[in-house]
Amino acid sequence: MRFSKLMITGAVSVLAAQISVGSAVAATAPKMTKEEFEKGKELFFQRCAGCHGVLRKGATGKPLTTDITLERGTEALEAMITYGSEGGMPGWEKELGAKNINILARYLQHEPPLPPEKGMKDIMATWKVTVPPEKRPKKQMNNYNLENIFSVTLRDAGQVALIDGDSKKIISVVKTGYAVHISRLSASGRYVYVVGRDGKVVMIDLWMKTPGEVAELHPCMEARSVETSKFKGWEDKYGIVGCYWPPQYVITDGETLKPLRIEGTRGMTIDNEYHPEPRVAAIIASHQKPEFIVNVKEAGKILAIDYSDIDNLKVTSINAAKFLHDGGWDRTHRYFMSAANKSDIISVVDSKTTKLVKNIKVGKIPHPGRGANFNHPKYGPVWATSHLGDDSIAMIGTDPKNHKQHAWKVVDTLTGLGGGSLFIKTHPKSKNLWVDDPLNPDPETYGSVAVFDINNLHKGYKVINVVKDAGLTGGRAVQPEYNAAGDEVWISVWNAETETSAIVVYDDKTRKVKHVIKDKRLVTPTGKFNVKNTMHDIY
Amino acid sequence: MRFSKLMITGAVSVLAAQISVGSAVAATAPKMTKEEFEKGKELFFQRCAGCHGVLRKGATGKPLTTDITLERGTEALEAMITYGSEGGMPGWEKELGAKNINILARYLQHEPPLPPEKGMKDIMATWKVTVPPEKRPKKQMNNYNLENIFSVTLRDAGQVALIDGDSKKIISVVKTGYAVHISRLSASGRYVYVVGRDGKVVMIDLWMKTPGEVAELHPCMEARSVETSKFKGWEDKYGIVGCYWPPQYVITDGETLKPLRIEGTRGMTIDNEYHPEPRVAAIIASHQKPEFIVNVKEAGKILAIDYSDIDNLKVTSINAAKFLHDGGWDRTHRYFMSAANKSDIISVVDSKTTKLVKNIKVGKIPHPGRGANFNHPKYGPVWATSHLGDDSIAMIGTDPKNHKQHAWKVVDTLTGLGGGSLFIKTHPKSKNLWVDDPLNPDPETYGSVAVFDINNLHKGYKVINVVKDAGLTGGRAVQPEYNAAGDEVWISVWNAETETSAIVVYDDKTRKVKHVIKDKRLVTPTGKFNVKNTMHDIY
Repeated sequence: MRFSKLMITGAVSVLAAQISVGSAVAATAPKMTKEEFEKGKELFFQRCAGCHGVLRKGATGKPLTTDITLERGTEALEAMITYGSEGGMPGWEKELGAKNINILARYLQHEPPLPPEKGMKDIMATWKVTVPPEKRPKKQMNNYNLENIFSVTLRDAGQVALIDGDSKKIISVVKTGYAVHISRLSASGRYVYVVGRDGKVVMIDLWMKTPGEVAELHPCMEARSVETSKFKGWEDKYGIVGCYWPPQYVITDGETLKPLRIEGTRGMTIDNEYHPEPRVAAIIASHQKPEFIVNVKEAGKILAIDYSDIDNLKVTSINAAKFLHDGGWDRTHRYFMSAANKSDIISVVDSKTTKLVKNIKVGKIPHPGRGANFNHPKYGPVWATSHLGDDSIAMIGTDPKNHKQHAWKVVDTLTGLGGGSLFIKTHPKSKNLWVDDPLNPDPETYGSVAVFDINNLHKGYKVINVVKDAGLTGGRAVQPEYNAAGDEVWISVWNAETETSAIVVYDDKTRKVKHVIKDKRLVTPTGKFNVKNTMHDIY
Repeated sequence: MRFSKLMITGAVSVLAAQISVGSAVAATAPKMTKEEFEKGKELFFQRCAGCHGVLRKGATGKPLTTDITLERGTEALEAMITYGSEGGMPGWEKELGAKNINILARYLQHEPPLPPEKGMKDIMATWKVTVPPEKRPKKQMNNYNLENIFSVTLRDAGQVALIDGDSKKIISVVKTGYAVHISRLSASGRYVYVVGRDGKVVMIDLWMKTPGEVAELHPCMEARSVETSKFKGWEDKYGIVGCYWPPQYVITDGETLKPLRIEGTRGMTIDNEYHPEPRVAAIIASHQKPEFIVNVKEAGKILAIDYSDIDNLKVTSINAAKFLHDGGWDRTHRYFMSAANKSDIISVVDSKTTKLVKNIKVGKIPHPGRGANFNHPKYGPVWATSHLGDDSIAMIGTDPKNHKQHAWKVVDTLTGLGGGSLFIKTHPKSKNLWVDDPLNPDPETYGSVAVFDINNLHKGYKVINVVKDAGLTGGRAVQPEYNAAGDEVWISVWNAETETSAIVVYDDKTRKVKHVIKDKRLVTPTGKFNVKNTMHDIY
């Protein structure tokens, strides 16, 4: 089943129309008990702030400031939260239930409580070195093939599962922050850094007999990104954590997570207007210079942060496009391809010259993860992204040297399963392009992935029903990830906390199921981060 | 008469002691009419915000947040405003009167209204090109010796007087922003940029028959600094305005003042704690690189802003010391010597390597203006500062090449007239060091300057009573400034708006009066900026 847009039911359209009429009379916020207000605050932070912003100024989601919400009123807000909207907001009926939705609808009509800042004193108080460097092993104390370990996000459990890619068995489950977002590897491949949406970072040492936590830090109240220094001579030296709130980034020691320098991102957007909450989205470590490259979302600025002298910190602020989110390298690791999601743009930054190369218009709400690099049969090296807001897959030429006429243009477009895609993936050793669709509204679609043949892109895709292959009846197929050898593709079946989830491992060549990982510890698995591919930025 | 500290009367000491007892009972702010509140806001902005901050978080002055002011109460606040304090705050009895002081005392117990942001839209609306570049003269249309013109701040008139240094006659009086702070010259010496404390910038073309305004911009609600690009190849290309509020700087076109890029300075101090209002103090144009060097006061960070590519703006943020204020170059124009006033520190930045060289402890509240460079008979090249908070004059070695053992140390200290000095000055062609003392509490002292013989520094200084030399009975002697040839020293006698002011011109060699400029248009003259010395950073 295919959708060219996120589809919604007619009933919701009608509601949305009613909502936009509203009332011009100044309203006052509905009464709430202290407990209800606290619950509303918690629900908003957990479910809504990611898109609408802690201060509700809007980002991927619409603004929800009280001038808007008071005009809508409780009933209309309830309807919106329950059924979602045309703009792409999902309905929350199932996850939250009527009672919580009512609390949330009333909460939204009150002024948002200003969350506190987090400076060095507060952050230092959260710093723990569970195992100090001198007490850590001097060599690998286990027999795992470290390069083929997967760090798997167990989203709602607040954990990651470390899975041995060779045996497909869980090595250990490590407690992390709430609503884990991503894992990143140190340049050496020894350390895994995990960041939760709650802003907590946990550092895992893979050399331990049973890999586990060696340090933690909680520098943000909300976060999405963590990265480590990868330039030659600086391996494992520094970490960096990007906060959604407070709007800032924190440079840490790479071995202990000790916070070293905090820099705020409040200030001007590329339009030179003040924004109180420009959040830090994707961060990527440069291979060209000792720099972290940091997306400042609402500002539309990409920062190149030179970590070679953090007392005299050099930061290049590149005007790109607003609503920068995720992205990754082109295959040469020189050009950073970054989605400016609500701007429908891919911003290309040259990490060698530290300048913007181009803003390229793509489909609606690009969401590449780190994107997919491959040789297009006709246009040469391309980097591809799928989209949250439509069914297109855009391929952008990335070789200004040998394919100059195709560079930094959308050279080809494919049609995928439908809107709602989060991740697209291939591997230098593969001829397949895997595209998921977990936020598509249709269960058949969101349980499946599309696989394209790179040598014959326009012959159409094969649909693989991952939920069915897992032997399950429900769930969303999310995030194809290659193993270290590049001959297997791992896809999560992400189900509710109370349901059974799984990871299905496909043989990349035959596209057939090779293995299904089911384990009661595998609660709400989403992203999977293969050590080798993550440490070397292979995608 | 000499003071080792700012002296205050016994009566005020007693009051200050009473004030600090206060009441622990939670108080509510005293009633004010809307008109009184507006008047309080205006008075605070004009007279208090400069030291205490728009948000009253404190800087050079103490914090005045409502937790503090409510505890003090109206009477104690009135006493403090009327008589000043031991910490160095002047009394305001004469300037404000009892009625305004009462309003201000009550106003301070109310929460400060949050001043608005100023983004590109607002700032563009203030931009005026009075004479567009194409309509300006192609060559100098007057017969003045441009290099010897002085741009003289008429502080309370909101004007500058352009004075012909050869004839000592006023060429023209140009309307500028309120409470003019400084003038700066374009690298070519053609354009004068004047910034008012109200944040308005006016650009004057010295080539016009009668030099006058060609462009204006009002990018801040409060400001102290303006500068222009001086690096080879970038002369007259860019301007920069530093704002106290909003905390930001604005890069402008050098020929038209068109605002091009705005960058906020909100964020972390060198202690990595969040500050909502880190104000932009002194700005100086680098001669080593295409960079502006910017003091971010409360943050304690010195920014080197590379203007060679303002779309991909490279900024080096140097951790220096908190409360950065004014400063200037060493004689080689490589090292920026900047006062961190409330930290009693001079921070030295190497503009070639863009790194902090050293933080040097000096006397209480250094206030060098741009400081004074000369060859110390014993220690070689030094840069000197006087102080607001004590009577010392610190000399710092600035020659790491030929006098390495003396570099970046206080090598010698002199004792001047007393605390309250604002400016110290010499010239490469002079053997005199002139030190004013306009904020000293003693009228005899604040009407005089001290002159030291550089070849015999410790033989003591000559006191010159500038007020007397001007034939006046009152006023403060402020800011010695050399003419282009370096053989005259101009000193203002700064009197109240209703009184007669003057500028006394001394022969530098004989230290005798050469000329007294008196003119009814010369209202509240303070800083004087000689074209040649300002454009070439000669001091």
